[in-house]
Amino acid sequence: MIKTKIPVRFNDCDAMGHVNNAVYYTYFEEGKREIFRWFTPTMDLNDWRVIVASTHCDYIQEINYDEELTIYTWISTISRSSFDVEHAISGTNGIWHARGRVTLIGYDYKEKKVMPLTEAIKGILKQHQDVPEGVPALRQIRIAEKSED
Amino acid sequence: MIKTKIPVRFNDCDAMGHVNNAVYYTYFEEGKREIFRWFTPTMDLNDWRVIVASTHCDYIQEINYDEELTIYTWISTISRSSFDVEHAISGTNGIWHARGRVTLIGYDYKEKKVMPLTEAIKGILKQHQDVPEGVPALRQIRIAEKSED
Amino acid sequence: MIKTKIPVRFNDCDAMGHVNNAVYYTYFEEGKREIFRWFTPTMDLNDWRVIVASTHCDYIQEINYDEELTIYTWISTISRSSFDVEHAISGTNGIWHARGRVTLIGYDYKEKKVMPLTEAIKGILKQHQDVPEGVPALRQIRIAEKSED
Amino acid sequence: MIKTKIPVRFNDCDAMGHVNNAVYYTYFEEGKREIFRWFTPTMDLNDWRVIVASTHCDYIQEINYDEELTIYTWISTISRSSFDVEHAISGTNGIWHARGRVTLIGYDYKEKKVMPLTEAIKGILKQHQDVPEGVPALRQIRIAEKSED
Repeated sequence: MIKTKIPVRFNDCDAMGHVNNAVYYTYFEEGKREIFRWFTPTMDLNDWRVIVASTHCDYIQEINYDEELTIYTWISTISRSSFDVEHAISGTNGIWHARGRVTLIGYDYKEKKVMPLTEAIKGILKQHQDVPEGVPALRQIRIAEKSED
Repeated sequence: MIKTKIPVRFNDCDAMGHVNNAVYYTYFEEGKREIFRWFTPTMDLNDWRVIVASTHCDYIQEINYDEELTIYTWISTISRSSFDVEHAISGTNGIWHARGRVTLIGYDYKEKKVMPLTEAIKGILKQHQDVPEGVPALRQIRIAEKSED
Repeated sequence: MIKTKIPVRFNDCDAMGHVNNAVYYTYFEEGKREIFRWFTPTMDLNDWRVIVASTHCDYIQEINYDEELTIYTWISTISRSSFDVEHAISGTNGIWHARGRVTLIGYDYKEKKVMPLTEAIKGILKQHQDVPEGVPALRQIRIAEKSED
Repeated sequence: MIKTKIPVRFNDCDAMGHVNNAVYYTYFEEGKREIFRWFTPTMDLNDWRVIVASTHCDYIQEINYDEELTIYTWISTISRSSFDVEHAISGTNGIWHARGRVTLIGYDYKEKKVMPLTEAIKGILKQHQDVPEGVPALRQIRIAEKSED
Protein backbone atom coordinates (compact mmCIF):
# COMPACT_ATOMS: atom_id res chain seq x y z
CA MET A 1 0.00 0.00 0.00
CA ILE A 2 1.21 3.48 -0.92
CA LYS A 3 0.30 6.58 1.11
CA THR A 4 0.49 9.96 -0.61
CA LYS A 5 -0.12 13.32 1.08
CA ILE A 6 -1.94 15.87 -1.08
CA PRO A 7 -2.65 19.47 -0.11
CA VAL A 8 -6.01 20.60 -1.54
CA ARG A 9 -5.50 23.58 -3.80
CA PHE A 10 -7.88 26.56 -3.95
CA ASN A 11 -8.38 25.91 -7.66
CA ASP A 12 -9.27 22.24 -7.03
CA CYS A 13 -12.63 23.50 -5.73
CA ASP A 14 -15.51 24.44 -7.98
CA ALA A 15 -18.39 26.84 -7.46
CA MET A 16 -20.04 24.49 -4.97
CA GLY A 17 -17.12 25.30 -2.64
CA HIS A 18 -15.76 21.75 -2.60
CA VAL A 19 -13.27 19.76 -4.67
CA ASN A 20 -14.68 19.16 -8.16
CA ASN A 21 -15.51 15.54 -9.04
CA ALA A 22 -12.93 15.42 -11.85
CA VAL A 23 -10.11 16.50 -9.55
CA TYR A 24 -10.43 13.28 -7.51
CA TYR A 25 -8.92 11.53 -10.52
CA THR A 26 -5.99 13.92 -10.42
CA TYR A 27 -5.54 12.94 -6.77
CA PHE A 28 -5.69 9.26 -7.77
CA GLU A 29 -3.07 10.01 -10.43
CA GLU A 30 -0.79 11.52 -7.80
CA GLY A 31 -1.36 8.40 -5.70
CA LYS A 32 0.07 6.35 -8.59
CA ARG A 33 3.35 8.26 -8.82
CA GLU A 34 5.40 5.39 -7.36
CA ILE A 35 3.65 2.93 -9.69
CA PHE A 36 4.67 5.06 -12.66
CA ARG A 37 8.23 4.95 -11.30
CA TRP A 38 8.17 1.13 -11.24
CA PHE A 39 7.49 1.20 -14.99
CA THR A 40 9.76 4.17 -15.79
CA PRO A 41 12.47 4.52 -13.11
CA THR A 42 13.85 7.66 -14.80
CA MET A 43 10.35 9.25 -14.86
CA ASP A 44 11.19 10.25 -18.44
CA LEU A 45 7.79 11.11 -19.93
CA ASN A 46 9.01 10.03 -23.36
CA ASP A 47 9.46 6.52 -21.99
CA TRP A 48 6.03 6.08 -20.37
CA ARG A 49 4.70 2.51 -20.30
CA VAL A 50 1.17 2.53 -18.95
CA ILE A 51 -2.13 3.90 -20.23
CA VAL A 52 -5.45 4.34 -18.44
CA ALA A 53 -8.21 1.94 -19.56
CA SER A 54 -10.98 2.85 -17.15
CA THR A 55 -11.55 4.89 -14.01
CA HIS A 56 -14.22 4.87 -11.33
CA CYS A 57 -14.91 6.93 -8.23
CA ASP A 58 -17.53 6.78 -5.49
CA TYR A 59 -17.88 10.11 -3.67
CA ILE A 60 -18.51 9.65 0.04
CA GLN A 61 -17.90 12.99 1.74
CA GLU A 62 -17.12 16.34 0.11
CA ILE A 63 -13.57 17.72 0.38
CA ASN A 64 -12.80 21.27 1.48
CA TYR A 65 -10.07 23.72 0.55
CA ASP A 66 -7.13 23.93 2.97
CA GLU A 67 -7.40 20.27 3.93
CA GLU A 68 -4.50 17.82 3.68
CA LEU A 69 -5.56 14.52 2.21
CA THR A 70 -4.02 11.07 2.30
CA ILE A 71 -4.44 9.00 -0.85
CA TYR A 72 -4.24 5.25 -0.17
CA THR A 73 -3.24 3.28 -3.25
CA TRP A 74 -2.98 -0.49 -3.62
CA ILE A 75 -3.25 -3.23 -6.25
CA SER A 76 -6.13 -5.69 -6.59
CA THR A 77 -6.51 -7.73 -9.82
CA ILE A 78 -3.35 -8.44 -11.83
CA SER A 79 -3.96 -9.75 -15.36
CA ARG A 80 -1.74 -10.52 -18.36
CA SER A 81 -1.31 -6.93 -19.55
CA SER A 82 -3.51 -4.93 -17.19
CA PHE A 83 -4.01 -4.42 -13.47
CA ASP A 84 -6.42 -2.65 -11.18
CA VAL A 85 -5.25 0.10 -8.89
CA GLU A 86 -7.50 0.77 -5.91
CA HIS A 87 -7.66 4.20 -4.29
CA ALA A 88 -9.19 5.64 -1.17
CA ILE A 89 -9.00 9.26 -0.02
CA SER A 90 -9.02 10.09 3.67
CA GLY A 91 -8.97 13.43 5.48
CA THR A 92 -6.91 14.54 8.43
CA ASN A 93 -9.58 13.41 10.85
CA GLY A 94 -9.73 9.87 9.43
CA ILE A 95 -12.94 10.45 7.42
CA TRP A 96 -13.16 8.56 4.11
CA HIS A 97 -13.91 11.01 1.34
CA ALA A 98 -13.83 8.74 -1.70
CA ARG A 99 -13.10 5.27 -3.03
CA GLY A 100 -11.95 4.55 -6.55
CA ARG A 101 -10.50 2.09 -8.99
CA VAL A 102 -8.32 2.71 -12.04
CA THR A 103 -7.43 0.02 -14.58
CA LEU A 104 -4.01 0.53 -16.13
CA ILE A 105 -2.66 -1.32 -19.18
CA GLY A 106 0.96 -1.89 -20.13
CA TYR A 107 1.38 0.18 -23.29
CA ASP A 108 4.00 1.04 -25.89
CA TYR A 109 3.30 4.65 -26.92
CA LYS A 110 5.61 4.51 -29.94
CA GLU A 111 4.10 1.33 -31.41
CA LYS A 112 0.67 2.25 -30.02
CA LYS A 113 0.04 -1.29 -28.78
CA VAL A 114 -0.70 -3.13 -25.55
CA MET A 115 2.32 -4.73 -23.82
CA PRO A 116 2.11 -7.69 -21.42
CA LEU A 117 3.27 -6.98 -17.88
CA THR A 118 6.75 -8.33 -17.20
CA GLU A 119 7.28 -10.85 -14.40
CA ALA A 120 9.41 -8.26 -12.60
CA ILE A 121 6.55 -5.74 -12.64
CA LYS A 122 4.04 -8.39 -11.55
CA GLY A 123 6.31 -9.19 -8.63
CA ILE A 124 6.35 -5.58 -7.47
CA LEU A 125 2.59 -5.22 -7.95
CA LYS A 126 2.00 -8.32 -5.78
CA GLN A 127 3.96 -6.68 -2.97
CA HIS A 128 1.44 -3.84 -2.85
CA GLN A 129 -1.84 -5.70 -2.46
CA ASP A 130 -2.39 -4.97 1.22
CA VAL A 131 -5.69 -3.21 1.82
CA PRO A 132 -5.92 -0.23 4.23
CA GLU A 133 -7.76 -1.06 7.44
CA GLY A 134 -11.39 0.01 7.54
CA VAL A 135 -11.44 1.17 3.93
CA PRO A 136 -14.96 1.25 2.43
CA ALA A 137 -15.83 -1.10 -0.43
CA LEU A 138 -16.71 0.17 -3.86
CA ARG A 139 -20.50 0.37 -4.22
CA GLN A 140 -20.62 -3.15 -5.67
CA ILE A 141 -24.34 -3.78 -5.25
CA ARG A 142 -25.15 -0.59 -7.06
CA ILE A 143 -22.85 -1.58 -9.92
CA ALA A 144 -24.30 -5.09 -10.05
CA GLU A 145 -27.79 -3.64 -10.17
CA LYS A 146 -26.71 -1.41 -12.99
CA SER A 147 -25.21 -4.19 -15.06
CA GLU A 148 -28.70 -5.61 -15.45
CA ASP A 149 -30.23 -2.50 -16.94
CA MET B 1 -30.50 12.62 -25.78
CA ILE B 2 -28.42 15.79 -25.50
CA LYS B 3 -25.57 16.60 -27.91
CA THR B 4 -22.89 19.04 -26.75
CA LYS B 5 -19.99 20.29 -28.90
CA ILE B 6 -16.71 20.70 -27.01
CA PRO B 7 -13.49 22.11 -28.47
CA VAL B 8 -10.46 20.34 -26.97
CA ARG B 9 -8.23 22.87 -25.23
CA PHE B 10 -4.43 22.78 -25.37
CA ASN B 11 -4.34 22.58 -21.57
CA ASP B 12 -6.74 19.59 -21.57
CA CYS B 13 -3.82 17.48 -22.79
CA ASP B 14 -1.14 16.10 -20.50
CA ALA B 15 2.48 15.19 -21.14
CA MET B 16 1.44 12.11 -23.13
CA GLY B 17 0.13 14.55 -25.77
CA HIS B 18 -3.52 13.49 -25.36
CA VAL B 19 -6.44 14.59 -23.21
CA ASN B 20 -5.81 13.66 -19.57
CA ASN B 21 -8.08 10.97 -18.08
CA ALA B 22 -9.53 13.38 -15.48
CA VAL B 23 -10.59 15.90 -18.14
CA TYR B 24 -13.08 13.42 -19.64
CA TYR B 25 -15.16 14.05 -16.51
CA THR B 26 -15.06 17.78 -17.21
CA TYR B 27 -16.38 16.98 -20.68
CA PHE B 28 -19.12 14.83 -19.11
CA GLU B 29 -19.92 17.74 -16.82
CA GLU B 30 -20.32 20.05 -19.81
CA GLY B 31 -22.60 17.42 -21.37
CA LYS B 32 -24.86 17.78 -18.31
CA ARG B 33 -25.35 21.54 -18.62
CA GLU B 34 -28.96 21.24 -19.78
CA ILE B 35 -29.66 18.76 -16.98
CA PHE B 36 -28.37 21.28 -14.45
CA ARG B 37 -30.73 23.82 -16.05
CA TRP B 38 -33.72 21.48 -15.50
CA PHE B 39 -32.96 21.57 -11.79
CA THR B 40 -31.95 25.25 -11.61
CA PRO B 41 -33.51 27.20 -14.51
CA THR B 42 -31.74 30.41 -13.44
CA MET B 43 -28.38 28.59 -13.37
CA ASP B 44 -27.80 30.39 -10.05
CA LEU B 45 -24.95 28.43 -8.46
CA ASN B 46 -26.29 29.28 -4.99
CA ASP B 47 -29.43 27.35 -5.84
CA TRP B 48 -27.82 24.12 -7.12
CA ARG B 49 -29.83 20.95 -6.53
CA VAL B 50 -27.76 17.96 -7.59
CA ILE B 51 -24.58 16.36 -6.30
CA VAL B 52 -22.33 13.73 -7.87
CA ALA B 53 -22.47 10.30 -6.20
CA SER B 54 -20.25 8.27 -8.49
CA THR B 55 -18.53 8.55 -11.86
CA HIS B 56 -17.13 6.02 -14.29
CA CYS B 57 -15.31 6.22 -17.62
CA ASP B 58 -14.05 3.64 -20.10
CA TYR B 59 -11.34 5.06 -22.36
CA ILE B 60 -11.61 3.72 -25.91
CA GLN B 61 -9.49 5.93 -28.14
CA GLU B 62 -7.18 8.78 -27.12
CA ILE B 63 -8.27 12.37 -27.85
CA ASN B 64 -6.01 14.92 -29.54
CA TYR B 65 -5.67 18.67 -29.21
CA ASP B 66 -7.48 20.76 -31.84
CA GLU B 67 -10.29 18.23 -32.19
CA GLU B 68 -13.96 19.10 -31.81
CA LEU B 69 -15.81 16.52 -29.76
CA THR B 70 -19.48 15.69 -29.44
CA ILE B 71 -20.62 14.61 -25.99
CA TYR B 72 -23.75 12.44 -26.10
CA THR B 73 -25.69 12.52 -22.83
CA TRP B 74 -28.79 10.54 -21.92
CA ILE B 75 -30.58 9.12 -18.88
CA SER B 76 -30.75 5.44 -17.96
CA THR B 77 -31.89 4.42 -14.45
CA ILE B 78 -34.22 6.81 -12.58
CA SER B 79 -34.62 6.09 -8.86
CA ARG B 80 -36.35 7.84 -5.97
CA SER B 81 -33.70 10.49 -5.35
CA SER B 82 -30.95 9.59 -7.83
CA PHE B 83 -30.53 8.91 -11.53
CA ASP B 84 -27.82 7.71 -13.88
CA VAL B 85 -26.54 9.92 -16.65
CA GLU B 86 -24.87 8.07 -19.51
CA HIS B 87 -22.20 9.73 -21.61
CA ALA B 88 -20.35 8.91 -24.81
CA ILE B 89 -17.69 11.02 -26.52
CA SER B 90 -17.31 10.94 -30.28
CA GLY B 91 -14.84 12.70 -32.56
CA THR B 92 -15.46 14.54 -35.80
CA ASN B 93 -14.91 11.38 -37.79
CA GLY B 94 -17.49 9.36 -35.85
CA ILE B 95 -14.94 7.49 -33.72
CA TRP B 96 -16.04 6.69 -30.16
CA HIS B 97 -13.45 8.00 -27.74
CA ALA B 98 -15.04 7.15 -24.41
CA ARG B 99 -18.11 5.88 -22.62
CA GLY B 100 -19.12 6.91 -19.13
CA ARG B 101 -21.77 6.96 -16.45
CA VAL B 102 -22.37 9.52 -13.71
CA THR B 103 -24.83 9.02 -10.85
CA LEU B 104 -26.41 12.25 -9.67
CA ILE B 105 -28.45 12.71 -6.49
CA GLY B 106 -31.05 15.37 -5.74
CA TYR B 107 -29.42 17.41 -2.98
CA ASP B 108 -30.14 20.38 -0.76
CA TYR B 109 -26.79 22.13 -0.25
CA LYS B 110 -28.07 24.34 2.57
CA GLU B 111 -29.58 21.48 4.61
CA LYS B 112 -26.86 19.08 3.38
CA LYS B 113 -29.36 16.33 2.73
CA VAL B 114 -30.61 14.15 -0.09
CA MET B 115 -33.84 15.32 -1.78
CA PRO B 116 -36.24 13.03 -3.67
CA LEU B 117 -36.65 13.83 -7.36
CA THR B 118 -39.90 15.68 -8.09
CA GLU B 119 -42.41 14.17 -10.50
CA ALA B 120 -41.80 17.11 -12.84
CA ILE B 121 -38.07 16.35 -12.97
CA LYS B 122 -38.71 12.63 -13.43
CA GLY B 123 -40.95 13.50 -16.36
CA ILE B 124 -38.18 15.50 -18.06
CA LEU B 125 -35.60 12.81 -17.35
CA LYS B 126 -37.85 10.18 -18.98
CA GLN B 127 -37.97 12.27 -22.14
CA HIS B 128 -34.19 11.94 -22.51
CA GLN B 129 -33.69 8.19 -22.36
CA ASP B 130 -33.07 7.61 -26.06
CA VAL B 131 -29.70 5.97 -26.67
CA PRO B 132 -27.38 7.20 -29.47
CA GLU B 133 -27.18 4.76 -32.37
CA GLY B 134 -24.14 2.51 -32.37
CA VAL B 135 -22.90 3.71 -28.99
CA PRO B 136 -20.58 1.20 -27.27
CA ALA B 137 -21.71 -0.45 -24.02
CA LEU B 138 -19.91 0.14 -20.76
CA ARG B 139 -17.45 -2.69 -20.15
CA GLN B 140 -20.08 -4.62 -18.20
CA ILE B 141 -18.40 -8.01 -18.17
CA ARG B 142 -15.25 -6.52 -16.80
CA ILE B 143 -17.24 -4.78 -14.05
CA ALA B 144 -19.21 -7.95 -13.28
CA GLU B 145 -15.95 -9.89 -13.04
CA LYS B 146 -14.65 -7.29 -10.66
CA SER B 147 -17.68 -7.37 -8.42
CA GLU B 148 -16.73 -10.93 -7.51
CA ASP B 149 -13.20 -10.12 -6.40
CA MET C 1 -7.29 40.10 -35.29
CA ILE C 2 -8.51 36.62 -34.36
CA LYS C 3 -11.88 36.02 -32.69
CA THR C 4 -12.35 32.78 -30.73
CA LYS C 5 -15.59 31.66 -29.11
CA ILE C 6 -15.14 29.91 -25.75
CA PRO C 7 -17.92 28.34 -23.70
CA VAL C 8 -17.21 28.76 -19.95
CA ARG C 9 -17.02 25.34 -18.30
CA PHE C 10 -18.46 24.58 -14.86
CA ASN C 11 -15.00 23.52 -13.71
CA ASP C 12 -13.45 26.81 -14.91
CA CYS C 13 -15.10 28.44 -11.89
CA ASP C 14 -13.65 28.32 -8.41
CA ALA C 15 -15.28 28.53 -4.99
CA MET C 16 -15.99 32.24 -5.46
CA GLY C 17 -18.49 31.19 -8.15
CA HIS C 18 -16.60 32.87 -11.00
CA VAL C 19 -13.88 31.84 -13.44
CA ASN C 20 -10.59 31.37 -11.59
CA ASN C 21 -7.81 33.86 -12.37
CA ALA C 22 -5.51 31.16 -13.78
CA VAL C 23 -8.14 29.97 -16.27
CA TYR C 24 -8.02 33.30 -18.12
CA TYR C 25 -4.61 32.20 -19.36
CA THR C 26 -6.15 28.99 -20.69
CA TYR C 27 -8.65 31.17 -22.56
CA PHE C 28 -5.76 33.26 -23.92
CA GLU C 29 -4.07 30.02 -24.99
CA GLU C 30 -7.19 29.00 -26.91
CA GLY C 31 -7.18 32.44 -28.53
CA LYS C 32 -3.69 31.64 -29.86
CA ARG C 33 -4.69 28.40 -31.62
CA GLU C 34 -4.39 29.90 -35.12
CA ILE C 35 -1.03 31.43 -34.19
CA PHE C 36 0.21 27.98 -33.18
CA ARG C 37 -1.00 26.73 -36.55
CA TRP C 38 1.08 29.38 -38.36
CA PHE C 39 4.17 27.91 -36.72
CA THR C 40 3.10 24.26 -36.95
CA PRO C 41 0.57 23.79 -39.77
CA THR C 42 0.17 20.07 -38.92
CA MET C 43 -0.52 20.93 -35.25
CA ASP C 44 1.87 18.06 -34.45
CA LEU C 45 2.76 18.66 -30.80
CA ASN C 46 6.17 17.06 -31.36
CA ASP C 47 6.95 19.84 -33.81
CA TRP C 48 6.01 22.83 -31.64
CA ARG C 49 7.99 26.03 -32.26
CA VAL C 50 6.99 28.64 -29.70
CA ILE C 51 7.42 28.92 -25.95
CA VAL C 52 5.83 31.34 -23.47
CA ALA C 53 8.20 33.96 -22.03
CA SER C 54 5.81 36.04 -19.97
CA THR C 55 2.09 36.51 -19.40
CA HIS C 56 -0.03 39.29 -17.94
CA CYS C 57 -3.72 39.75 -17.25
CA ASP C 58 -5.81 42.65 -15.92
CA TYR C 59 -9.16 41.45 -14.55
CA ILE C 60 -11.96 43.90 -15.30
CA GLN C 61 -15.26 42.11 -14.67
CA GLU C 62 -15.81 38.62 -13.25
CA ILE C 63 -16.92 35.82 -15.61
CA ASN C 64 -19.84 33.52 -14.84
CA TYR C 65 -20.54 29.90 -15.67
CA ASP C 66 -22.77 29.27 -18.70
CA GLU C 67 -21.53 32.36 -20.50
CA GLU C 68 -20.07 32.29 -24.02
CA LEU C 69 -16.98 34.41 -24.33
CA THR C 70 -15.19 35.93 -27.28
CA ILE C 71 -11.41 36.06 -27.04
CA TYR C 72 -9.91 38.82 -29.20
CA THR C 73 -6.28 38.14 -30.11
CA TRP C 74 -3.90 40.38 -32.04
CA ILE C 75 -0.19 41.09 -32.38
CA SER C 76 1.58 44.21 -31.09
CA THR C 77 5.41 44.24 -30.85
CA ILE C 78 7.36 41.98 -33.25
CA SER C 79 11.05 41.52 -32.39
CA ARG C 80 13.87 39.36 -33.74
CA SER C 81 12.84 36.12 -32.05
CA SER C 82 9.86 37.12 -29.94
CA PHE C 83 6.52 38.85 -30.31
CA ASP C 84 3.72 40.09 -28.09
CA VAL C 85 0.24 38.69 -28.38
CA GLU C 86 -2.50 40.93 -27.03
CA HIS C 87 -5.75 39.47 -25.71
CA ALA C 88 -9.10 40.84 -24.63
CA ILE C 89 -12.06 38.84 -23.36
CA SER C 90 -15.59 40.05 -23.99
CA GLY C 91 -18.94 38.59 -22.94
CA THR C 92 -22.10 38.12 -24.96
CA ASN C 93 -23.37 41.55 -23.95
CA GLY C 94 -20.23 43.36 -25.12
CA ILE C 95 -18.76 43.79 -21.63
CA TRP C 96 -14.96 43.62 -21.42
CA HIS C 97 -13.97 41.02 -18.84
CA ALA C 98 -10.19 41.08 -19.13
CA ARG C 99 -7.19 42.39 -21.02
CA GLY C 100 -3.93 40.53 -21.34
CA ARG C 101 -0.57 40.22 -23.04
CA VAL C 102 1.52 37.12 -23.68
CA THR C 103 5.09 37.23 -25.00
CA LEU C 104 5.98 34.22 -27.17
CA ILE C 105 9.46 33.25 -28.30
CA GLY C 106 10.43 31.16 -31.32
CA TYR C 107 11.88 28.01 -29.78
CA ASP C 108 13.46 24.73 -30.82
CA TYR C 109 12.33 22.17 -28.20
CA LYS C 110 14.83 19.53 -29.33
CA GLU C 111 17.87 21.80 -29.20
CA LYS C 112 16.36 23.78 -26.31
CA LYS C 113 17.28 27.11 -27.86
CA VAL C 114 15.69 30.33 -29.04
CA MET C 115 15.01 30.55 -32.79
CA PRO C 116 14.69 33.83 -34.73
CA LEU C 117 11.30 34.40 -36.35
CA THR C 118 11.33 33.71 -40.08
CA GLU C 119 10.38 36.46 -42.52
CA ALA C 120 7.36 34.39 -43.55
CA ILE C 121 6.12 34.28 -39.95
CA LYS C 122 6.80 37.98 -39.45
CA GLY C 123 4.72 38.66 -42.54
CA ILE C 124 1.75 36.75 -41.15
CA LEU C 125 2.10 38.38 -37.73
CA LYS C 126 2.04 41.83 -39.35
CA GLN C 127 -1.27 41.00 -40.98
CA HIS C 128 -2.86 40.54 -37.55
CA GLN C 129 -2.01 43.80 -35.84
CA ASP C 130 -5.46 45.40 -36.06
CA VAL C 131 -6.81 46.32 -32.63
CA PRO C 132 -10.45 45.57 -31.68
CA GLU C 133 -12.58 48.70 -31.48
CA GLY C 134 -13.12 50.04 -27.97
CA VAL C 135 -10.76 47.57 -26.34
CA PRO C 136 -9.44 48.76 -22.96
CA ALA C 137 -5.72 49.47 -22.56
CA LEU C 138 -3.52 47.44 -20.25
CA ARG C 139 -3.19 49.24 -16.92
CA GLN C 140 -0.04 51.02 -18.10
CA ILE C 141 0.11 53.74 -15.46
CA ARG C 142 -0.15 51.16 -12.73
CA ILE C 143 2.72 49.19 -14.29
CA ALA C 144 4.84 52.31 -14.74
CA GLU C 145 4.21 53.24 -11.13
CA LYS C 146 5.29 49.77 -10.12
CA SER C 147 8.51 49.85 -12.08
CA GLU C 148 9.69 52.63 -9.75
CA ASP C 149 9.13 50.72 -6.55
CA MET D 1 8.29 36.12 3.38
CA ILE D 2 6.24 32.95 3.09
CA LYS D 3 7.67 29.66 1.80
CA THR D 4 5.24 27.07 0.41
CA LYS D 5 6.21 23.59 -0.79
CA ILE D 6 4.30 22.38 -3.85
CA PRO D 7 4.61 18.94 -5.41
CA VAL D 8 4.22 19.17 -9.21
CA ARG D 9 1.28 17.04 -10.35
CA PHE D 10 1.29 14.93 -13.50
CA ASN D 11 -1.74 16.85 -14.74
CA ASP D 12 0.01 20.22 -14.19
CA CYS D 13 2.08 19.42 -17.29
CA ASP D 14 0.82 19.96 -20.81
CA ALA D 15 1.73 18.28 -24.08
CA MET D 16 5.13 19.99 -24.13
CA GLY D 17 6.03 17.80 -21.14
CA HIS D 18 6.41 20.73 -18.73
CA VAL D 19 4.13 22.64 -16.38
CA ASN D 20 1.60 24.68 -18.38
CA ASN D 21 1.95 28.48 -18.20
CA ALA D 22 -1.48 28.90 -16.56
CA VAL D 23 -0.63 26.49 -13.73
CA TYR D 24 2.08 28.85 -12.44
CA TYR D 25 -0.79 31.08 -11.30
CA THR D 26 -2.29 28.17 -9.39
CA TYR D 27 1.11 27.78 -7.69
CA PHE D 28 1.09 31.50 -6.90
CA GLU D 29 -2.42 31.07 -5.48
CA GLU D 30 -1.18 28.30 -3.19
CA GLY D 31 1.66 30.60 -2.13
CA LYS D 32 -0.98 33.08 -0.95
CA ARG D 33 -2.80 30.65 1.36
CA GLU D 34 -1.53 32.31 4.54
CA ILE D 35 -2.45 35.73 3.15
CA PHE D 36 -6.01 34.51 2.58
CA ARG D 37 -5.99 33.34 6.20
CA TRP D 38 -5.03 36.83 7.42
CA PHE D 39 -8.20 38.15 5.77
CA THR D 40 -10.42 35.16 6.64
CA PRO D 41 -9.02 33.32 9.70
CA THR D 42 -11.78 30.67 9.47
CA MET D 43 -10.96 30.06 5.77
CA ASP D 44 -14.73 30.12 5.23
CA LEU D 45 -15.09 30.62 1.48
CA ASN D 46 -18.38 32.46 2.02
CA ASP D 47 -16.47 35.11 3.94
CA TRP D 48 -13.70 35.79 1.41
CA ARG D 49 -12.35 39.35 1.38
CA VAL D 50 -9.88 39.72 -1.46
CA ILE D 51 -10.19 39.65 -5.23
CA VAL D 52 -7.51 39.45 -7.92
CA ALA D 53 -6.99 42.66 -9.93
CA SER D 54 -4.04 41.68 -12.10
CA THR D 55 -1.46 38.93 -12.45
CA HIS D 56 1.91 38.69 -14.15
CA CYS D 57 4.48 35.94 -14.60
CA ASP D 58 7.92 35.81 -16.21
CA TYR D 59 8.91 32.24 -17.13
CA ILE D 60 12.60 31.60 -16.54
CA GLN D 61 13.15 27.84 -16.63
CA GLU D 62 10.61 25.12 -17.45
CA ILE D 63 9.29 22.94 -14.61
CA ASN D 64 9.19 19.15 -14.79
CA TYR D 65 6.81 16.56 -13.36
CA ASP D 66 7.91 14.89 -10.12
CA GLU D 67 9.72 17.99 -8.90
CA GLU D 68 9.05 19.65 -5.54
CA LEU D 69 8.87 23.40 -5.81
CA THR D 70 9.21 26.17 -3.28
CA ILE D 71 6.99 29.19 -3.82
CA TYR D 72 8.41 32.35 -2.22
CA THR D 73 5.73 34.94 -1.50
CA TRP D 74 6.19 38.45 -0.13
CA ILE D 75 4.52 41.86 -0.19
CA SER D 76 5.81 44.91 -2.07
CA THR D 77 3.49 47.91 -2.59
CA ILE D 78 0.71 48.49 -0.04
CA SER D 79 -1.95 50.98 -1.10
CA ARG D 80 -5.28 52.14 0.35
CA SER D 81 -7.35 49.16 -0.75
CA SER D 82 -4.90 47.05 -2.77
CA PHE D 83 -1.47 45.50 -2.40
CA ASP D 84 1.04 43.69 -4.57
CA VAL D 85 2.07 40.15 -3.79
CA GLU D 86 5.39 39.11 -5.25
CA HIS D 87 6.12 35.47 -6.08
CA ALA D 88 9.17 33.48 -7.11
CA ILE D 89 9.30 29.75 -7.82
CA SER D 90 12.44 27.78 -7.12
CA GLY D 91 13.27 24.12 -7.67
CA THR D 92 14.97 21.65 -5.36
CA ASN D 93 18.36 22.55 -6.79
CA GLY D 94 17.96 26.27 -6.15
CA ILE D 95 17.14 27.17 -9.76
CA TRP D 96 14.67 30.03 -10.25
CA HIS D 97 11.83 28.85 -12.47
CA ALA D 98 9.59 31.90 -12.48
CA ARG D 99 8.94 35.35 -11.05
CA GLY D 100 5.51 36.88 -10.70
CA ARG D 101 3.35 39.60 -9.22
CA VAL D 102 -0.32 39.52 -8.27
CA THR D 103 -2.30 42.59 -7.27
CA LEU D 104 -5.04 41.84 -4.74
CA ILE D 105 -7.85 44.20 -3.74
CA GLY D 106 -9.85 44.20 -0.52
CA TYR D 107 -13.34 43.22 -1.66
CA ASP D 108 -16.82 42.69 -0.26
CA TYR D 109 -18.34 39.88 -2.34
CA LYS D 110 -21.86 40.45 -1.01
CA GLU D 111 -21.92 44.19 -1.72
CA LYS D 112 -19.67 43.73 -4.78
CA LYS D 113 -17.50 46.68 -3.82
CA VAL D 114 -13.88 47.50 -3.03
CA MET D 115 -13.00 47.68 0.69
CA PRO D 116 -10.07 49.67 2.10
CA LEU D 117 -7.44 47.57 3.86
CA THR D 118 -7.72 47.77 7.65
CA GLU D 119 -4.78 49.04 9.70
CA ALA D 120 -4.50 45.58 11.26
CA ILE D 121 -4.11 43.96 7.83
CA LYS D 122 -1.63 46.62 6.71
CA GLY D 123 0.39 45.86 9.81
CA ILE D 124 0.60 42.16 8.97
CA LEU D 125 1.41 42.88 5.32
CA LYS D 126 4.30 45.13 6.38
CA GLN D 127 5.77 42.28 8.38
CA HIS D 128 6.12 40.21 5.19
CA GLN D 129 8.03 42.55 2.93
CA ASP D 130 11.41 40.82 3.18
CA VAL D 131 12.71 39.79 -0.25
CA PRO D 132 14.26 36.32 -0.79
CA GLU D 133 18.00 36.46 -1.31
CA GLY D 134 19.13 36.30 -4.93
CA VAL D 135 15.61 36.43 -6.34
CA PRO D 136 15.48 37.68 -9.95
CA ALA D 137 13.74 40.98 -10.74
CA LEU D 138 10.62 41.14 -12.87
CA ARG D 139 11.58 41.99 -16.46
CA GLN D 140 11.05 45.71 -15.80
CA ILE D 141 12.88 47.08 -18.82
CA ARG D 142 10.86 44.90 -21.12
CA ILE D 143 7.66 46.19 -19.50
CA ALA D 144 8.86 49.81 -19.70
CA GLU D 145 9.69 49.34 -23.37
CA LYS D 146 6.23 47.93 -23.92
CA SER D 147 4.45 50.78 -22.25
CA GLU D 148 5.65 53.04 -25.08
CA ASP D 149 4.19 50.99 -27.90
